[in-house]
Amino acid sequence: MNAREEIAAPTAARVQGTIWGVGLGPGDPDLMSVRADRLLRRARHVAYFRKAGRSGQARRIVDGLLPEDVTETAMEYPVTTEIPLDDPRYNALLSRFYADCAARLRALSDAGHEVLVLAEGDPFFYGSFMHLYIRLRDAVPMRVVPAITGMAAAWTATGTPISWGDDVMCTLMGTLPEEALVDQMVRADALVIMKIGRNIDKIRRALRRAGRYDAAWLVEYAAMPDQTVQRLSEAEGRITPYFSIILVHGQGRRP
Amino acid sequence: MNAREEIAAPTAARVQGTIWGVGLGPGDPDLMSVRADRLLRRARHVAYFRKAGRSGQARRIVDGLLPEDVTETAMEYPVTTEIPLDDPRYNALLSRFYADCAARLRALSDAGHEVLVLAEGDPFFYGSFMHLYIRLRDAVPMRVVPAITGMAAAWTATGTPISWGDDVMCTLMGTLPEEALVDQMVRADALVIMKIGRNIDKIRRALRRAGRYDAAWLVEYAAMPDQTVQRLSEAEGRITPYFSIILVHGQGRRP
Repeated sequence: MNAREEIAAPTAARVQGTIWGVGLGPGDPDLMSVRADRLLRRARHVAYFRKAGRSGQARRIVDGLLPEDVTETAMEYPVTTEIPLDDPRYNALLSRFYADCAARLRALSDAGHEVLVLAEGDPFFYGSFMHLYIRLRDAVPMRVVPAITGMAAAWTATGTPISWGDDVMCTLMGTLPEEALVDQMVRADALVIMKIGRNIDKIRRALRRAGRYDAAWLVEYAAMPDQTVQRLSEAEGRITPYFSIILVHGQGRRP
Repeated sequence: MNAREEIAAPTAARVQGTIWGVGLGPGDPDLMSVRADRLLRRARHVAYFRKAGRSGQARRIVDGLLPEDVTETAMEYPVTTEIPLDDPRYNALLSRFYADCAARLRALSDAGHEVLVLAEGDPFFYGSFMHLYIRLRDAVPMRVVPAITGMAAAWTATGTPISWGDDVMCTLMGTLPEEALVDQMVRADALVIMKIGRNIDKIRRALRRAGRYDAAWLVEYAAMPDQTVQRLSEAEGRITPYFSIILVHGQGRRP
Protein backbone atom coordinates (compact mmCIF):
# COMPACT_ATOMS: atom_id res chain seq x y z
CA MET A 1 0.00 0.00 0.00
CA ASN A 2 1.27 3.43 -0.92
CA ALA A 3 1.40 5.91 1.98
CA ARG A 4 0.02 8.53 -0.38
CA GLU A 5 -3.17 6.53 -0.70
CA GLU A 6 -3.44 6.08 3.05
CA ILE A 7 -3.78 9.81 3.70
CA ALA A 8 -5.88 10.75 0.67
CA ALA A 9 -8.57 13.15 1.91
CA PRO A 10 -12.05 13.35 0.36
CA THR A 11 -11.55 17.10 -0.28
CA ALA A 12 -9.73 18.59 -3.25
CA ALA A 13 -6.84 19.58 -0.94
CA ARG A 14 -3.44 18.69 -2.35
CA VAL A 15 -2.09 15.41 -1.00
CA GLN A 16 1.40 15.45 0.53
CA GLY A 17 4.04 13.53 -1.39
CA THR A 18 5.85 10.66 0.34
CA ILE A 19 9.45 11.22 1.41
CA TRP A 20 11.45 8.04 1.01
CA GLY A 21 14.70 7.12 2.66
CA VAL A 22 16.20 4.92 -0.04
CA GLY A 23 19.14 2.82 1.13
CA LEU A 24 21.71 2.55 -1.65
CA GLY A 25 23.89 -0.09 -0.05
CA PRO A 26 27.69 -0.08 0.11
CA GLY A 27 28.46 1.63 -3.20
CA ASP A 28 28.13 -0.83 -6.07
CA PRO A 29 24.83 -0.09 -7.88
CA ASP A 30 24.54 -3.83 -8.51
CA LEU A 31 24.15 -4.26 -4.73
CA MET A 32 21.14 -1.96 -4.43
CA SER A 33 17.82 -3.68 -3.81
CA VAL A 34 15.46 -4.35 -6.68
CA ARG A 35 13.05 -1.92 -4.97
CA ALA A 36 15.61 0.89 -4.70
CA ASP A 37 16.63 0.37 -8.33
CA ARG A 38 13.01 0.57 -9.51
CA LEU A 39 12.24 3.68 -7.43
CA LEU A 40 15.33 5.49 -8.67
CA ARG A 41 14.67 4.75 -12.34
CA ARG A 42 11.28 6.46 -12.14
CA ALA A 43 12.37 9.24 -9.72
CA ARG A 44 10.98 12.78 -10.13
CA HIS A 45 12.84 14.42 -7.20
CA VAL A 46 15.93 13.19 -5.42
CA ALA A 47 17.74 14.74 -2.45
CA TYR A 48 21.14 13.89 -1.01
CA PHE A 49 23.80 15.13 1.39
CA ARG A 50 27.23 16.16 0.19
CA LYS A 51 30.20 18.24 1.21
CA ALA A 52 30.22 21.69 -0.39
CA GLY A 53 32.12 21.57 -3.67
CA ARG A 54 31.97 17.75 -3.93
CA SER A 55 29.71 15.63 -6.13
CA GLY A 56 28.81 13.43 -3.15
CA GLN A 57 29.13 9.67 -2.74
CA ALA A 58 25.38 8.96 -2.57
CA ARG A 59 24.77 10.88 -5.79
CA ARG A 60 27.70 9.12 -7.47
CA ILE A 61 26.27 5.67 -6.72
CA VAL A 62 23.11 6.43 -8.75
CA ASP A 63 24.92 8.00 -11.70
CA GLY A 64 23.32 6.79 -14.91
CA LEU A 65 20.24 5.40 -13.14
CA LEU A 66 18.14 8.55 -12.69
CA PRO A 67 15.81 9.87 -15.42
CA GLU A 68 17.28 12.82 -17.37
CA ASP A 69 14.63 15.26 -16.18
CA VAL A 70 14.90 14.46 -12.44
CA THR A 71 15.00 17.43 -10.04
CA GLU A 72 17.89 17.33 -7.57
CA THR A 73 18.15 18.83 -4.09
CA ALA A 74 21.76 18.85 -2.87
CA MET A 75 21.97 19.32 0.91
CA GLU A 76 25.48 20.68 1.55
CA TYR A 77 27.00 20.17 4.98
CA PRO A 78 28.16 23.41 6.58
CA VAL A 79 31.98 23.53 6.69
CA THR A 80 32.84 22.09 10.09
CA THR A 81 36.55 21.32 10.21
CA GLU A 82 37.29 24.57 12.09
CA ILE A 83 34.97 23.60 14.98
CA PRO A 84 35.89 20.51 17.04
CA LEU A 85 33.30 17.73 17.35
CA ASP A 86 32.80 18.27 21.11
CA ASP A 87 32.22 22.04 20.81
CA PRO A 88 28.50 22.80 21.46
CA ARG A 89 28.59 25.17 18.47
CA TYR A 90 29.23 22.16 16.21
CA ASN A 91 26.03 20.53 17.38
CA ALA A 92 24.05 23.78 17.07
CA LEU A 93 25.33 24.32 13.54
CA LEU A 94 24.40 20.81 12.45
CA SER A 95 21.04 20.97 14.17
CA ARG A 96 20.17 24.16 12.26
CA PHE A 97 21.40 22.55 9.04
CA TYR A 98 19.19 19.46 9.45
CA ALA A 99 16.19 21.65 10.33
CA ASP A 100 16.75 23.67 7.13
CA CYS A 101 17.01 20.51 5.03
CA ALA A 102 13.86 19.08 6.62
CA ALA A 103 11.99 22.32 5.82
CA ARG A 104 13.05 22.13 2.18
CA LEU A 105 11.86 18.53 1.89
CA ARG A 106 8.64 19.29 3.71
CA ALA A 107 7.89 22.09 1.21
CA LEU A 108 8.33 19.63 -1.65
CA SER A 109 6.05 17.10 0.05
CA ASP A 110 3.41 19.74 0.81
CA ALA A 111 3.45 20.68 -2.88
CA GLY A 112 2.57 17.07 -3.67
CA HIS A 113 5.99 15.86 -4.78
CA GLU A 114 7.38 12.44 -3.96
CA VAL A 115 11.05 12.79 -2.92
CA LEU A 116 13.68 10.06 -2.75
CA VAL A 117 16.38 10.82 -0.19
CA LEU A 118 19.52 8.91 -1.22
CA ALA A 119 21.09 7.18 1.77
CA GLU A 120 24.45 5.38 1.67
CA GLY A 121 24.39 1.99 3.38
CA ASP A 122 21.21 1.28 5.35
CA PRO A 123 19.13 4.38 6.22
CA PHE A 124 18.49 3.39 9.88
CA PHE A 125 22.03 2.23 10.72
CA TYR A 126 24.19 5.24 11.75
CA GLY A 127 22.83 7.21 8.78
CA SER A 128 22.45 10.96 8.13
CA PHE A 129 18.95 10.38 6.77
CA MET A 130 17.86 9.62 10.35
CA HIS A 131 18.29 13.31 11.28
CA LEU A 132 15.74 14.25 8.63
CA TYR A 133 13.48 11.34 9.48
CA ILE A 134 12.96 12.26 13.14
CA ARG A 135 12.21 15.87 12.15
CA LEU A 136 9.68 14.92 9.47
CA ARG A 137 8.00 11.67 10.45
CA ASP A 138 5.08 13.26 12.31
CA ALA A 139 4.38 15.81 9.56
CA VAL A 140 4.85 13.99 6.28
CA PRO A 141 4.21 10.45 4.96
CA MET A 142 7.54 8.62 4.98
CA ARG A 143 8.83 5.23 3.91
CA VAL A 144 12.22 3.57 4.27
CA VAL A 145 13.93 1.02 2.02
CA PRO A 146 16.53 -1.02 3.94
CA ALA A 147 19.83 -1.85 2.28
CA ILE A 148 23.03 -3.84 2.41
CA THR A 149 25.32 -2.27 5.01
CA GLY A 150 28.89 -1.22 4.34
CA MET A 151 30.00 -3.73 6.98
CA ALA A 152 28.39 -6.61 5.04
CA ALA A 153 30.30 -5.56 1.93
CA ALA A 154 33.46 -5.39 4.05
CA TRP A 155 33.20 -8.87 5.52
CA THR A 156 32.27 -10.28 2.12
CA ALA A 157 35.43 -8.64 0.74
CA THR A 158 37.60 -10.46 3.31
CA GLY A 159 36.36 -13.83 2.03
CA THR A 160 35.70 -14.98 5.61
CA PRO A 161 32.37 -15.19 7.46
CA ILE A 162 32.01 -12.63 10.26
CA SER A 163 29.97 -14.54 12.85
CA TRP A 164 29.16 -18.15 13.70
CA GLY A 165 26.94 -20.00 16.17
CA ASP A 166 26.68 -18.03 19.42
CA ASP A 167 29.20 -15.32 18.48
CA VAL A 168 28.54 -11.88 19.94
CA MET A 169 29.13 -9.25 17.26
CA CYS A 170 29.71 -5.63 18.25
CA THR A 171 29.79 -2.58 16.01
CA LEU A 172 32.04 0.10 17.49
CA MET A 173 32.63 3.66 16.33
CA GLY A 174 36.25 4.80 16.24
CA THR A 175 35.05 8.09 17.76
CA LEU A 176 34.56 6.34 21.15
CA PRO A 177 37.13 6.86 23.94
CA GLU A 178 39.92 4.29 24.03
CA GLU A 179 38.75 2.77 27.33
CA ALA A 180 35.25 2.22 25.98
CA LEU A 181 36.68 0.55 22.87
CA VAL A 182 38.88 -1.81 24.91
CA ASP A 183 35.99 -2.67 27.24
CA GLN A 184 33.89 -3.89 24.30
CA MET A 185 36.76 -5.44 22.33
CA VAL A 186 37.67 -7.86 25.12
CA ARG A 187 34.05 -9.06 25.50
CA ALA A 188 32.72 -9.45 21.97
CA ASP A 189 33.66 -12.28 19.60
CA ALA A 190 33.28 -10.52 16.25
CA LEU A 191 34.10 -6.82 15.89
CA VAL A 192 33.13 -4.24 13.29
CA ILE A 193 34.82 -0.87 13.76
CA MET A 194 33.65 2.12 11.71
CA LYS A 195 34.37 5.86 11.55
CA ILE A 196 38.11 5.30 11.34
CA GLY A 197 40.02 8.21 9.69
CA ARG A 198 41.88 10.21 12.33
CA ASN A 199 40.90 7.70 15.03
CA ILE A 200 43.14 5.00 13.57
CA ASP A 201 45.97 5.25 16.13
CA LYS A 202 43.56 5.09 19.07
CA ILE A 203 41.81 2.09 17.49
CA ARG A 204 45.14 0.30 16.97
CA ARG A 205 46.08 0.86 20.63
CA ALA A 206 42.69 -0.39 21.81
CA LEU A 207 42.90 -3.54 19.65
CA ARG A 208 46.41 -4.25 20.99
CA ARG A 209 45.32 -3.80 24.60
CA ALA A 210 42.38 -6.13 23.97
CA GLY A 211 44.63 -8.75 22.35
CA ARG A 212 42.74 -8.54 19.06
CA TYR A 213 45.21 -6.60 16.91
CA ASP A 214 46.78 -9.50 15.01
CA ALA A 215 43.36 -10.81 13.96
CA ALA A 216 42.13 -7.46 12.62
CA TRP A 217 41.52 -6.70 8.94
CA LEU A 218 41.28 -3.31 7.26
CA VAL A 219 38.86 -2.92 4.35
CA GLU A 220 38.87 0.31 2.37
CA TYR A 221 36.16 1.24 -0.17
CA ALA A 222 34.25 -2.05 0.24
CA ALA A 223 32.29 -2.99 -2.92
CA MET A 224 33.76 -0.01 -4.78
CA PRO A 225 36.31 0.01 -7.61
CA ASP A 226 39.18 1.00 -5.27
CA GLN A 227 38.46 -1.75 -2.73
CA THR A 228 41.48 -2.92 -0.69
CA VAL A 229 41.65 -5.70 1.90
CA GLN A 230 44.65 -6.23 4.14
CA ARG A 231 45.62 -7.24 7.66
CA LEU A 232 45.64 -4.15 9.86
CA SER A 233 49.12 -5.08 11.09
CA GLU A 234 50.36 -4.91 7.49
CA ALA A 235 48.94 -1.40 7.02
CA GLU A 236 51.13 0.31 9.66
CA GLY A 237 51.47 4.03 8.99
CA ARG A 238 48.76 3.95 6.37
CA ILE A 239 46.37 6.89 6.25
CA THR A 240 42.96 5.40 5.75
CA PRO A 241 39.66 7.11 4.87
CA TYR A 242 36.94 7.83 7.44
CA PHE A 243 34.69 5.24 5.81
CA SER A 244 37.15 2.37 6.10
CA ILE A 245 36.02 -0.59 8.17
CA ILE A 246 38.10 -2.73 10.53
CA LEU A 247 36.93 -6.28 11.17
CA VAL A 248 37.79 -9.07 13.58
CA HIS A 249 36.04 -12.27 12.58
CA GLY A 250 34.22 -14.44 15.10
CA GLN A 251 35.46 -17.99 15.65
CA GLY A 252 32.25 -19.49 17.06
CA ARG A 253 30.89 -22.98 17.10
CA ARG A 254 30.77 -24.72 13.74
CA PRO A 255 30.02 -28.40 13.09
CA MET B 1 35.12 -10.69 -13.96
CA ASN B 2 33.65 -14.15 -13.91
CA ALA B 3 35.58 -16.61 -11.75
CA ARG B 4 35.16 -19.19 -14.47
CA GLU B 5 37.17 -17.03 -16.84
CA GLU B 6 39.84 -16.47 -14.20
CA ILE B 7 40.73 -20.12 -14.00
CA ALA B 8 40.26 -21.09 -17.66
CA ALA B 9 43.19 -23.34 -18.58
CA PRO B 10 44.69 -23.56 -22.07
CA THR B 11 44.03 -27.32 -22.15
CA ALA B 12 40.77 -28.96 -23.06
CA ALA B 13 40.27 -30.03 -19.41
CA ARG B 14 36.83 -29.25 -18.09
CA VAL B 15 36.71 -26.03 -16.11
CA GLN B 16 35.08 -26.15 -12.67
CA GLY B 17 31.85 -24.20 -12.34
CA THR B 18 31.65 -21.41 -9.77
CA ILE B 19 29.62 -22.05 -6.62
CA TRP B 20 27.88 -18.87 -5.54
CA GLY B 21 26.51 -18.02 -2.11
CA VAL B 22 23.64 -15.79 -3.13
CA GLY B 23 22.21 -13.75 -0.25
CA LEU B 24 18.44 -13.44 -0.66
CA GLY B 25 17.88 -10.84 2.06
CA PRO B 26 15.11 -10.90 4.67
CA GLY B 27 12.35 -12.54 2.63
CA ASP B 28 10.72 -9.99 0.31
CA PRO B 29 12.02 -10.67 -3.23
CA ASP B 30 11.89 -6.89 -3.80
CA LEU B 31 14.65 -6.56 -1.20
CA MET B 32 17.08 -8.84 -3.03
CA SER B 33 20.02 -7.12 -4.67
CA VAL B 34 19.94 -6.35 -8.37
CA ARG B 35 22.84 -8.80 -8.72
CA ALA B 36 21.05 -11.64 -6.93
CA ASP B 37 17.92 -11.03 -8.97
CA ARG B 38 19.87 -11.17 -12.23
CA LEU B 39 21.79 -14.32 -11.26
CA LEU B 40 18.61 -16.12 -10.22
CA ARG B 41 16.72 -15.28 -13.40
CA ARG B 42 19.39 -16.97 -15.49
CA ALA B 43 20.14 -19.81 -13.02
CA ARG B 44 20.89 -23.30 -14.35
CA HIS B 45 21.40 -25.04 -10.97
CA VAL B 46 20.24 -23.91 -7.55
CA ALA B 47 20.81 -25.56 -4.17
CA TYR B 48 19.20 -24.78 -0.83
CA PHE B 49 18.76 -26.10 2.68
CA ARG B 50 15.38 -27.14 4.02
CA LYS B 51 13.80 -29.27 6.68
CA ALA B 52 12.68 -32.67 5.41
CA GLY B 53 9.12 -32.48 4.16
CA ARG B 54 9.08 -28.66 3.98
CA SER B 55 9.39 -26.47 0.90
CA GLY B 56 12.03 -24.33 2.62
CA GLN B 57 12.07 -20.57 3.24
CA ALA B 58 15.02 -19.85 0.90
CA ARG B 59 13.34 -21.69 -1.97
CA ARG B 60 10.05 -19.92 -1.28
CA ILE B 61 11.66 -16.46 -1.58
CA VAL B 62 12.70 -17.14 -5.18
CA ASP B 63 9.38 -18.66 -6.26
CA GLY B 64 8.48 -17.34 -9.69
CA LEU B 65 11.99 -15.99 -10.34
CA LEU B 66 13.83 -19.13 -11.44
CA PRO B 67 13.80 -20.34 -15.07
CA GLU B 68 11.40 -23.23 -15.63
CA ASP B 69 14.15 -25.69 -16.56
CA VAL B 70 16.40 -24.98 -13.56
CA THR B 71 17.89 -28.00 -11.76
CA GLU B 72 17.33 -28.03 -8.00
CA THR B 73 19.39 -29.61 -5.23
CA ALA B 74 17.47 -29.69 -1.94
CA MET B 75 19.80 -30.27 1.03
CA GLU B 76 17.57 -31.67 3.78
CA TYR B 77 18.67 -31.27 7.37
CA PRO B 78 18.81 -34.55 9.24
CA VAL B 79 16.01 -34.74 11.83
CA THR B 80 17.62 -33.35 14.97
CA THR B 81 14.91 -32.64 17.53
CA GLU B 82 15.56 -35.92 19.35
CA ILE B 83 19.21 -34.99 20.04
CA PRO B 84 19.89 -31.96 22.29
CA LEU B 85 22.07 -29.15 20.87
CA ASP B 86 24.90 -29.75 23.37
CA ASP B 87 25.14 -33.49 22.68
CA PRO B 88 28.35 -34.26 20.73
CA ARG B 89 26.29 -36.54 18.47
CA TYR B 90 24.36 -33.50 17.27
CA ASN B 91 27.56 -31.88 16.08
CA ALA B 92 28.81 -35.09 14.46
CA LEU B 93 25.50 -35.55 12.63
CA LEU B 94 25.53 -32.02 11.27
CA SER B 95 29.19 -32.19 10.36
CA ARG B 96 28.56 -35.32 8.28
CA PHE B 97 25.52 -33.66 6.68
CA TYR B 98 27.49 -30.57 5.62
CA ALA B 99 30.31 -32.74 4.28
CA ASP B 100 27.80 -34.70 2.18
CA CYS B 101 26.23 -31.49 0.84
CA ALA B 102 29.65 -30.07 0.01
CA ALA B 103 30.52 -33.26 -1.90
CA ARG B 104 27.31 -32.99 -3.95
CA LEU B 105 28.06 -29.38 -4.85
CA ARG B 106 31.67 -30.17 -5.63
CA ALA B 107 30.58 -32.88 -8.07
CA LEU B 108 28.39 -30.34 -9.88
CA SER B 109 31.25 -27.85 -10.01
CA ASP B 110 33.71 -30.48 -11.24
CA ALA B 111 31.27 -31.33 -14.05
CA GLY B 112 31.44 -27.69 -15.12
CA HIS B 113 28.15 -26.48 -13.68
CA GLU B 114 27.66 -23.10 -12.05
CA VAL B 115 25.56 -23.52 -8.88
CA LEU B 116 23.72 -20.83 -6.95
CA VAL B 117 23.34 -21.68 -3.26
CA LEU B 118 20.32 -19.78 -1.93
CA ALA B 119 21.13 -18.14 1.41
CA GLU B 120 18.54 -16.36 3.57
CA GLY B 121 19.74 -13.01 4.90
CA ASP B 122 23.45 -12.32 4.32
CA PRO B 123 25.54 -15.43 3.54
CA PHE B 124 28.44 -14.52 5.90
CA PHE B 125 26.34 -13.42 8.89
CA TYR B 126 25.35 -16.48 11.01
CA GLY B 127 24.43 -18.35 7.83
CA SER B 128 24.23 -22.06 6.99
CA PHE B 129 25.99 -21.43 3.69
CA MET B 130 29.17 -20.74 5.68
CA HIS B 131 29.43 -24.43 6.57
CA LEU B 132 29.60 -25.32 2.88
CA TYR B 133 31.88 -22.39 2.11
CA ILE B 134 34.67 -23.41 4.50
CA ARG B 135 34.54 -26.98 3.17
CA LEU B 136 34.70 -25.94 -0.49
CA ARG B 137 36.63 -22.70 -0.78
CA ASP B 138 40.05 -24.30 -1.32
CA ALA B 139 38.76 -26.76 -3.91
CA VAL B 140 36.26 -24.86 -6.04
CA PRO B 141 35.90 -21.30 -7.39
CA MET B 142 33.43 -19.52 -5.12
CA ARG B 143 31.77 -16.13 -4.99
CA VAL B 144 29.48 -14.52 -2.44
CA VAL B 145 26.74 -11.92 -2.96
CA PRO B 146 26.06 -9.95 0.26
CA ALA B 147 22.49 -9.11 1.18
CA ILE B 148 20.18 -7.16 3.43
CA THR B 149 20.14 -8.81 6.86
CA GLY B 150 17.01 -9.87 8.66
CA MET B 151 17.92 -7.44 11.44
CA ALA B 152 17.88 -4.49 9.00
CA ALA B 153 14.39 -5.48 7.87
CA ALA B 154 13.39 -5.74 11.55
CA TRP B 155 14.60 -2.28 12.56
CA THR B 156 13.07 -0.79 9.43
CA ALA B 157 9.77 -2.42 10.42
CA THR B 158 9.83 -0.69 13.83
CA GLY B 159 9.99 2.73 12.13
CA THR B 160 12.84 3.79 14.43
CA PRO B 161 16.56 3.98 13.64
CA ILE B 162 18.63 1.36 15.45
CA SER B 163 21.90 3.22 16.12
CA TRP B 164 23.12 6.83 16.34
CA GLY B 165 26.41 8.63 16.77
CA ASP B 166 28.72 6.59 19.02
CA ASP B 167 26.20 3.88 19.89
CA VAL B 168 27.61 0.41 20.46
CA MET B 169 25.39 -2.15 18.77
CA CYS B 170 25.55 -5.82 19.79
CA THR B 171 24.02 -8.80 18.09
CA LEU B 172 23.25 -11.54 20.60
CA MET B 173 22.02 -15.07 20.03
CA GLY B 174 19.22 -16.25 22.30
CA THR B 175 21.08 -19.55 22.59
CA LEU B 176 23.69 -17.90 24.87
CA PRO B 177 23.57 -18.51 28.64
CA GLU B 178 21.53 -15.97 30.61
CA GLU B 179 24.60 -14.54 32.37
CA ALA B 180 26.37 -13.88 29.07
CA LEU B 181 23.27 -12.17 27.70
CA VAL B 182 22.97 -9.87 30.73
CA ASP B 183 26.68 -9.06 30.62
CA GLN B 184 26.35 -7.74 27.06
CA MET B 185 22.92 -6.16 27.48
CA VAL B 186 24.07 -3.84 30.25
CA ARG B 187 27.06 -2.61 28.21
CA ALA B 188 25.75 -2.12 24.67
CA ASP B 189 23.51 0.76 23.57
CA ALA B 190 21.59 -0.90 20.75
CA LEU B 191 20.71 -4.60 20.92
CA VAL B 192 19.71 -7.11 18.27
CA ILE B 193 18.72 -10.52 19.65
CA MET B 194 18.23 -13.42 17.26
CA LYS B 195 17.54 -17.17 17.51
CA ILE B 196 14.58 -16.63 19.83
CA GLY B 197 12.02 -19.50 19.75
CA ARG B 198 12.33 -21.62 22.91
CA ASN B 199 14.87 -19.17 24.37
CA ILE B 200 12.26 -16.44 24.81
CA ASP B 201 11.80 -16.77 28.60
CA LYS B 202 15.54 -16.67 29.24
CA ILE B 203 15.86 -13.60 26.97
CA ARG B 204 13.02 -11.83 28.81
CA ARG B 205 14.71 -12.51 32.17
CA ALA B 206 18.05 -11.24 30.87
CA LEU B 207 16.50 -8.05 29.45
CA ARG B 208 14.74 -7.40 32.78
CA ARG B 209 17.92 -7.94 34.77
CA ALA B 210 19.75 -5.55 32.43
CA GLY B 211 17.02 -2.91 32.75
CA ARG B 212 16.27 -3.04 29.00
CA TYR B 213 12.99 -4.95 28.98
CA ASP B 214 10.58 -2.02 28.65
CA ALA B 215 12.49 -0.64 25.64
CA ALA B 216 12.51 -3.95 23.74
CA TRP B 217 10.53 -4.61 20.56
CA LEU B 218 9.61 -7.96 19.05
CA VAL B 219 9.51 -8.26 15.26
CA GLU B 220 8.18 -11.45 13.69
CA TYR B 221 8.53 -12.29 9.99
CA ALA B 222 10.28 -9.00 9.12
CA ALA B 223 9.69 -7.97 5.48
CA MET B 224 7.34 -10.91 4.96
CA PRO B 225 3.55 -10.89 4.48
CA ASP B 226 2.92 -11.95 8.11
CA GLN B 227 5.15 -9.25 9.62
CA THR B 228 4.23 -8.17 13.16
CA VAL B 229 5.82 -5.44 15.31
CA GLN B 230 5.04 -4.99 18.99
CA ARG B 231 6.61 -4.09 22.29
CA LEU B 232 8.02 -7.24 23.87
CA SER B 233 6.20 -6.34 27.10
CA GLU B 234 2.91 -6.44 25.21
CA ALA B 235 3.63 -9.92 23.82
CA GLU B 236 3.71 -11.71 27.21
CA GLY B 237 3.00 -15.41 26.84
CA ARG B 238 3.32 -15.25 23.10
CA ILE B 239 5.01 -18.16 21.38
CA THR B 240 7.27 -16.63 18.78
CA PRO B 241 9.16 -18.29 15.93
CA TYR B 242 12.89 -19.05 16.05
CA PHE B 243 13.53 -16.41 13.40
CA SER B 244 11.90 -13.56 15.32
CA ILE B 245 14.15 -10.65 16.21
CA ILE B 246 14.13 -8.60 19.41
CA LEU B 247 15.49 -5.05 19.20
CA VAL B 248 16.43 -2.35 21.67
CA HIS B 249 17.12 0.92 19.83
CA GLY B 250 20.17 3.03 20.60
CA GLN B 251 19.64 6.55 21.91
CA GLY B 252 23.00 8.04 20.93
CA ARG B 253 24.09 11.57 20.14
CA ARG B 254 22.00 13.41 17.56
CA PRO B 255 22.19 17.08 16.67
